[in-house]
Amino acid sequence: MCPPLWIAAWALLLHGCAAGRAPPAPSTRNDIRDCSADPPYLPPTATNTTARLAALRSLLRTHGTHAYIVPSTDAHMSEYISERDARLGWITGFTGSAGTAVVTQDAAALWTDSRYWTQAERELDCNWELQRTPSIESIAMWILRAVPAEGNVALDPFLFSIDTWNSYSRALHGSGRTLLPLETNLVDEAWGDQRPLPSSSEIYSLPAEFTGSSWQEKVAGIRRRMEQHVRRPTAVLLSGLEETAWLFNLRGDDIPYNPVFYSYTLLTNTTISLFVEERRLSEAARGSLLSGCPGPLCVELRDYGQVSAHLRRYAQGNVTVWLGTEYTTYGLYGIIPQEKLLEENYSPVMMAKAVKNAHEQEMLRAAHVRDAVAVIQYLLWLEKKVPQGQVDEFSGAQHIDALRWAQEHSHGPSFQSISASGLNAALAHYSPSNGSSRTLSVREMYLFDTGGQYLDGTTDITRTVHWGEPTPLQKEAYTRVLMGNIDLSRLVFPSNTAGRTVESFARRALWDVGLNYGHGTGHGIGNFLSVHEWPVGFQSNNVPLEAGMFTSIEPGYYQDGEFGIRIEDVAVVVEAQTESEEEPFLTFELVSLVPYDRNLIDLSLLSPEQIRYLNSYYERIRAHVGPELRRQRLEEAHAWLQESTEPFPVSSAGTAAAGTLALASLLSVLLSGLGA
Amino acid sequence: MCPPLWIAAWALLLHGCAAGRAPPAPSTRNDIRDCSADPPYLPPTATNTTARLAALRSLLRTHGTHAYIVPSTDAHMSEYISERDARLGWITGFTGSAGTAVVTQDAAALWTDSRYWTQAERELDCNWELQRTPSIESIAMWILRAVPAEGNVALDPFLFSIDTWNSYSRALHGSGRTLLPLETNLVDEAWGDQRPLPSSSEIYSLPAEFTGSSWQEKVAGIRRRMEQHVRRPTAVLLSGLEETAWLFNLRGDDIPYNPVFYSYTLLTNTTISLFVEERRLSEAARGSLLSGCPGPLCVELRDYGQVSAHLRRYAQGNVTVWLGTEYTTYGLYGIIPQEKLLEENYSPVMMAKAVKNAHEQEMLRAAHVRDAVAVIQYLLWLEKKVPQGQVDEFSGAQHIDALRWAQEHSHGPSFQSISASGLNAALAHYSPSNGSSRTLSVREMYLFDTGGQYLDGTTDITRTVHWGEPTPLQKEAYTRVLMGNIDLSRLVFPSNTAGRTVESFARRALWDVGLNYGHGTGHGIGNFLSVHEWPVGFQSNNVPLEAGMFTSIEPGYYQDGEFGIRIEDVAVVVEAQTESEEEPFLTFELVSLVPYDRNLIDLSLLSPEQIRYLNSYYERIRAHVGPELRRQRLEEAHAWLQESTEPFPVSSAGTAAAGTLALASLLSVLLSGLGA
Repeated sequence: MCPPLWIAAWALLLHGCAAGRAPPAPSTRNDIRDCSADPPYLPPTATNTTARLAALRSLLRTHGTHAYIVPSTDAHMSEYISERDARLGWITGFTGSAGTAVVTQDAAALWTDSRYWTQAERELDCNWELQRTPSIESIAMWILRAVPAEGNVALDPFLFSIDTWNSYSRALHGSGRTLLPLETNLVDEAWGDQRPLPSSSEIYSLPAEFTGSSWQEKVAGIRRRMEQHVRRPTAVLLSGLEETAWLFNLRGDDIPYNPVFYSYTLLTNTTISLFVEERRLSEAARGSLLSGCPGPLCVELRDYGQVSAHLRRYAQGNVTVWLGTEYTTYGLYGIIPQEKLLEENYSPVMMAKAVKNAHEQEMLRAAHVRDAVAVIQYLLWLEKKVPQGQVDEFSGAQHIDALRWAQEHSHGPSFQSISASGLNAALAHYSPSNGSSRTLSVREMYLFDTGGQYLDGTTDITRTVHWGEPTPLQKEAYTRVLMGNIDLSRLVFPSNTAGRTVESFARRALWDVGLNYGHGTGHGIGNFLSVHEWPVGFQSNNVPLEAGMFTSIEPGYYQDGEFGIRIEDVAVVVEAQTESEEEPFLTFELVSLVPYDRNLIDLSLLSPEQIRYLNSYYERIRAHVGPELRRQRLEEAHAWLQESTEPFPVSSAGTAAAGTLALASLLSVLLSGLGA
Repeated sequence: MCPPLWIAAWALLLHGCAAGRAPPAPSTRNDIRDCSADPPYLPPTATNTTARLAALRSLLRTHGTHAYIVPSTDAHMSEYISERDARLGWITGFTGSAGTAVVTQDAAALWTDSRYWTQAERELDCNWELQRTPSIESIAMWILRAVPAEGNVALDPFLFSIDTWNSYSRALHGSGRTLLPLETNLVDEAWGDQRPLPSSSEIYSLPAEFTGSSWQEKVAGIRRRMEQHVRRPTAVLLSGLEETAWLFNLRGDDIPYNPVFYSYTLLTNTTISLFVEERRLSEAARGSLLSGCPGPLCVELRDYGQVSAHLRRYAQGNVTVWLGTEYTTYGLYGIIPQEKLLEENYSPVMMAKAVKNAHEQEMLRAAHVRDAVAVIQYLLWLEKKVPQGQVDEFSGAQHIDALRWAQEHSHGPSFQSISASGLNAALAHYSPSNGSSRTLSVREMYLFDTGGQYLDGTTDITRTVHWGEPTPLQKEAYTRVLMGNIDLSRLVFPSNTAGRTVESFARRALWDVGLNYGHGTGHGIGNFLSVHEWPVGFQSNNVPLEAGMFTSIEPGYYQDGEFGIRIEDVAVVVEAQTESEEEPFLTFELVSLVPYDRNLIDLSLLSPEQIRYLNSYYERIRAHVGPELRRQRLEEAHAWLQESTEPFPVSSAGTAAAGTLALASLLSVLLSGLGA
């Protein structure tokens, strides 16, 4: 999947010049809203925020602060948040997933990136300026104009990462304005009793068959890492919700699509403190956590809200606290004296979780086999229904969700299904809604990017299909996206290689003809956890690739207003078959097992090696998914699979005379497009 | 070239997991020295440092400091240093280019990387421990053991980069030890009147025909960048010696191989201060600098030693000083209050210098044509002399240096020529010395990595040759290194792509069979300036590639104790011929114009595209170098060139059946090597 935060992170990276296209320049087009009219014109989708802003401004005055910054994330730096944490949405009316708001007595502004400009114009009322350059520098410049020298700018330190806090601090440094951490969240106060209550649903233990190892073994492993670290940390602090869920083999449903629950963990060399609402633990979960009491494997259950106070007490001792800065808020971080901190980008739990052990790998592979059954059933169903005009984007998404639900161990989708036909697919984050959904047709391409949560693993796959006659440009672009997927998947590389140094292999076939895509190339994935699981991936803040890591590989191409292509597979890093005398070399093995659309592949562009690779992948699909289809008595799907995975003739390779023919046809299409 | 600092930087990067192999683990082998014997055994090459250390320790006591850190660089973060700045060499006896020493009353230790361990054992006496883990963390751990709590650790802040200072500061933070900046350099005091005097040679103006633009135009361009910057800096501070030399079109010879001179520049929006020994300026240089006086284009000449005092005065005003942190010492940086600093990795002068204008490009191309003549003459000479056993590494190096000197506008080599036969070539930084030089032979491979300084440009090229029968492994490894060079050179990529995201294309053909190389893939190069010119290149601290930048491309392969291969060309970034609707796409064009060794190329490994690329490169060599050879009446060399650039048959491509045959032969060689 290629969703909000991930793209946002990528857009930020671009400012550091990572790769790909530059982000779009701030638009000069007119706002949909007309706030200078009398009365102002607003679309009916806008939210009236006058009363909410009045309440917040009153609190600003009470606290003697001149401005208040509201971010879009929660206290755990989560990518998805619960309704209760949708503070930005409540105060602004804007429901996009990425943005920052600043409110003063006289002004209010929202910053968001180009994906959300139209949506923001539809949702904001005239209390709000829409700012289209969502960088901290730009926000700080606005603050410098809006806040008097000697004024102060408040924020909730428990909602900002260490990095973001430092960036604001640097930007205001020397300006006379003070950055004021306010532990009372002013939006929450203004929101009052209208704010959704915290989740009260059950937190449960995963059955042993669905865990890589017992939580006691995991705790012992982390303690070994602590002992082996040169700084000899006495404790590890976990703020990321996935970290605690993984460590204790617990799951919950506090956040849509992510089976996690609100919690913190302080794991010391002798004690374990889990900060969570104790009454929400299932009997089995409670029993498991308390089974080692008293002793070093006894989990002390403490109130979720007690984490700061407890950490403050702990930090008074002769201790060293190890934490990952990417998932810790400035609020918690600031509690620990600098000399007692051991900071790394990711906690040892994140690092341990990133490398799947043999059983975790086996589970993820098994989940992907069942997931492939659902996707193949969907492709077969589309092939029959689309020509009859019986499917739209929304009903398609509903159907694939239902097919996944029917698979064993299913816990629903792992993110909101992306189901996009024709020009809608050029919007990378498009999801259909009932009522405004495009009908699928043999005259245009269809992209679906979907995934499932299963007790044994999380899946994520994108296929792009065309049931009619694709244009030469569509076929060439699809083939080049596929070539990128193949070239990165079959790359052999040394241990300890960073993903960012190899992700260009997924782009080269596109670059060759002046095309590219504006998002990252892949992300880690969990065992019944997040569909975007850091720190694995191809971006600059990802860690080097190691055998046992799982990542998506998902190049694409998007032609604005016309069509969108993405081909996404999940792959596991495995040892390569070379006879290196030194460390092992690595490569990828695809774990997603669904054939590509033959109708969109121009074999003449592929090299013999690429065709051989494709054929061996198709053999693996047949070997793994074929028996499962038979076991589920899906004979028609099995026949479809056999037909769709027929080997390609290697002799067709490279007949496009080194791409010049293809290039010429591509250019003529592009040029005619320009001329039109 | 692939020399000391550059590799060191790469090794450091590896700790951040950039690419390629991990650095070698600290060796457990015995030191050559036997300091426990009575009397200690020392090789005759060791330097007695007892008196020097006694002098330094006495100064430590005088200044009340417990330890003193001595780095290997100078006050300008230069890669090459003058004898006067060889403080590390004087106090330790160790003459390698990279290392750090720490001296306390009771102990003295030197840290250096694996390239220099043997050399250090031969040069250090028993006063010195040799430490083989050259990280700041390791140095700090040693300091924590050697210095009492509440003790202090002194260093000269004008010899440490901001980053290095911060790293020491972080490592000692909270330990009770204080990091003490001592402006008096204690090694200089101990060295006393034995220390070499500063250079007194002339600093001269480049003739207008050898400059890209006048210094006045360059100053105006930098002032435009200041005005356009959102922070509106009032001044730019230049510490890098190349920066001042480039800005004023001045050159000197204070540092071997680098035509620069000791200086600083403070360029404000209204004034220009050049800190330099005024009496060393040639009449013409002085006249040029003062020609705009009084006025905003008048250069005020100030004493080199006055930079701190002047900067301190300037920083008291309402100013903002823009500097590049990579080339500024902590000493100068610390003078400027934090809120008056505009810090970027590289100064605007470094950024402007990195993109060559049309005339600078033309000059660099012209220098490379003449340089190719010298290299082709050398290859022809070797072909005749080597079979007769008449050439050794040292005389070879002397000969190519002489051939370069004979070319127009020559100012000698741009670095110490690397001339390495057989197993010596496996040492990436090997240079021969008279007396210990290996004879070149038709039975082994020969690698030479050399370059020239010309008034119009700096060159750097590596060729590897074999005049007899290469082994299958040598031939395959050479071919794969060449494939890497070709694959990166012909890559098409979007504007704003960072080198580090594409350098793997130079490694892939090696990776495919489990091979790799342990150094970076390329570096920027100047117009009669440094052979390693930052910030252009393929490492993580290089800036995105832009049209007009010049970089080397130099993959290699090194088989310890047997042979070494490197193929290095300088290339310019140019716009690619694609019809992208957005920003232009870029590619490389090779500027080095010397054919590769046909004897070492296994055509069956190459793809048709690679052979076509090679043939078009050879056509360009003929077109550009052929006429110059004729003009210089080098008819024999011209005939050699024609023969050496005969087109390769495209039909030979890919007959190695996707490399499996080649792989098998490679494996058998590797395995037999293991079995031996």
